[in-house]
Amino acid sequence: MQWPFSRRANALTSSAIREILKVTEQPDVISFAGGLPSAATFPVEAMQVATRKVLEEHAESALQYGPSEGLGKLREWIAAEYSRDGAEVRPSQVLLTTGSQQALDLIAKALIDPGSRVLVETPTYLGALQAFSLFEPEYVSVASDDQGLLPETLTPEVIEGARFLYALPNFQNPTGRRLPLSRREALAAIAREHDLPIVEDDPYGDLDYQGERLASLRSLAPKQVIHLGSFSKVLAPGLRLGYVIADDALIAKLVQIKQAADLHTPSFTQQVVYEIVSQGFLKGHIPEIRTLYAERCQAMLAALEKHMPEGVHWNRPEGGMFIWVTLPESLDSTELLTEAIRERVAFVPGAPFYATAPQANTLRLSFVTVEPARIEEGVRRLGRLVARQLGGTSEHLPLV
Amino acid sequence: MQWPFSRRANALTSSAIREILKVTEQPDVISFAGGLPSAATFPVEAMQVATRKVLEEHAESALQYGPSEGLGKLREWIAAEYSRDGAEVRPSQVLLTTGSQQALDLIAKALIDPGSRVLVETPTYLGALQAFSLFEPEYVSVASDDQGLLPETLTPEVIEGARFLYALPNFQNPTGRRLPLSRREALAAIAREHDLPIVEDDPYGDLDYQGERLASLRSLAPKQVIHLGSFSKVLAPGLRLGYVIADDALIAKLVQIKQAADLHTPSFTQQVVYEIVSQGFLKGHIPEIRTLYAERCQAMLAALEKHMPEGVHWNRPEGGMFIWVTLPESLDSTELLTEAIRERVAFVPGAPFYATAPQANTLRLSFVTVEPARIEEGVRRLGRLVARQLGGTSEHLPLV
Repeated sequence: MQWPFSRRANALTSSAIREILKVTEQPDVISFAGGLPSAATFPVEAMQVATRKVLEEHAESALQYGPSEGLGKLREWIAAEYSRDGAEVRPSQVLLTTGSQQALDLIAKALIDPGSRVLVETPTYLGALQAFSLFEPEYVSVASDDQGLLPETLTPEVIEGARFLYALPNFQNPTGRRLPLSRREALAAIAREHDLPIVEDDPYGDLDYQGERLASLRSLAPKQVIHLGSFSKVLAPGLRLGYVIADDALIAKLVQIKQAADLHTPSFTQQVVYEIVSQGFLKGHIPEIRTLYAERCQAMLAALEKHMPEGVHWNRPEGGMFIWVTLPESLDSTELLTEAIRERVAFVPGAPFYATAPQANTLRLSFVTVEPARIEEGVRRLGRLVARQLGGTSEHLPLV
Repeated sequence: MQWPFSRRANALTSSAIREILKVTEQPDVISFAGGLPSAATFPVEAMQVATRKVLEEHAESALQYGPSEGLGKLREWIAAEYSRDGAEVRPSQVLLTTGSQQALDLIAKALIDPGSRVLVETPTYLGALQAFSLFEPEYVSVASDDQGLLPETLTPEVIEGARFLYALPNFQNPTGRRLPLSRREALAAIAREHDLPIVEDDPYGDLDYQGERLASLRSLAPKQVIHLGSFSKVLAPGLRLGYVIADDALIAKLVQIKQAADLHTPSFTQQVVYEIVSQGFLKGHIPEIRTLYAERCQAMLAALEKHMPEGVHWNRPEGGMFIWVTLPESLDSTELLTEAIRERVAFVPGAPFYATAPQANTLRLSFVTVEPARIEEGVRRLGRLVARQLGGTSEHLPLV
């Protein structure tokens, strides 16, 4: 059977890296490759209490079809939480989605025609590129440094005709970097002046190790910013629950598109999450996640310091789940990965995170799912591999 | 803020009927408008047992990210169930989706380019038209009668260049009709001969009141048919759990597209549903749903017989949730709806279910969520309204 695939489907290629990374599920591999939160933080007990309550008190609405916009009382809760930060959010401005990933798909459908200009960071979140690319945009990579994108490079020529800028200001996936307040303000000023839509993807905003928060882009340019939030990193990703906050005109279009995409996000998971968060659970829970992740981040930074040869650079994240490593330019992290897998350690090469002009000598390390002792051992193996490649020898040293 | 909407987003119009139908949520309205299953059939106790077990024994995998293809053991269970019907299904041919609606979106993305020919029944499921239309196909409505589409009208000229035929052979939404075996065989022969993909949407197949099943299109043309199944009508729609069965090459593309759409369907709901169905729960449960729906279908048929004036026609479904009513040609069911709402009874006008050339004198009645006594009263009001419109008087009779 020859399927009559669409142009967008024909353009899809299968990922070689995905195939390589399949082995990382084997327990003897120390994997820094996952983008997974730590299962140690999953609220199992709160889930037990909440599911019992939902099935005792709200079974009919939890099991029936629901509104495409999402559960009314959860929209109200989210609106109230965000309104506390100063920039008011009305419940009508909140749309629940099946994970933040779905929000990216809905926004792409609403705003991208073939050839539309879309501005992205350098590098940026791979899942967003996958969602947007199905709608065939022309990407423009905005110059960025260790602190994030450089607003001054967003000249009128770059912005001209852009459908939106996609930004992750807090502890970006893949780099872990955070955009400083002054750049947020500069970016928001550009958005307001040029009516440039900004998609602010913010799954990691709560994970500042000091419990601080910089002003969101949304609070600085409420009309132009489409804010994406998620319960994946503060509760559990297996619930697939995220949300969009934007002005009513955009939400109205997204609701129609959402209805065609999956009618609505599961009523059951929305009811359960509402029961958990409306009891104030996150106030105590998020600090626990922060403490755990901060400790593991420190363990990885210490291990990198100890085991990486000269010429390797990395950033020092203030929150989130990732560290970004830049190897000497002569090295290719995809080649390194094949070697690393043999030594039972894994990471994600950086190249796929670039919309244009991939930098082959970069890689992403995730530290949150690995115990500190294993973090040290994994980084030790990586450091030895890098040193060996820099030294030009390709023999396999014994693992002692 | 002027949003730079895509062409597809600009083409979206808000539904006037949806606005009218919002009042049907008021408890004093007898609503035959919903496409909802009866909440009386929801497996609340089984859900309680299953959620408890999942959170005690599989909490980590139920709350963590999972594979885009879906939960392995649930794919195996579905494959085994379908294999019993004779045409073997392998687990690799099963993709779990966030409700069947998502399957429609994924298939549209995989197979439709702007202007692609898509064949649909007359009338057809509105939600499918909504999903497909975002990808800008050219619809061709295939001639149909009270028993479904007429295979002999699928000439080579009609099929030429078609990306797929979308069909609902069992108790179709909106008409409730079922395609006879001889037509299924004729259709499958055409699919095999011309390599015409057929999307077989089958959410109601288990709801035959006699517990019978006609051969699926998939079993008759396994290579060409993309089969869609759902737990919405046999367990609960609020779980948003459906699946696609198709050959490996198509599934591989759909998995990539699914990953961009929402990463994966919630792990938690998949685990819970697996616990329920793997215990054999559906064997006892589905007959209960059939009995309830058959009884309510009979109640509505009897009421139509008693209260509808001459010149009104309807079908006699052998399963499912819907009856399709054809009024005399002089009447417009959308106008009738406005009157009906005043008399506190609701239905869905038939026009939106046509991809081309809407028939304004048709309407869909759903009987499954209404008690028999209320069914009779609702149909009585409707019959009186129709009689009044046929009689040419527009006065509001008192409701006694």
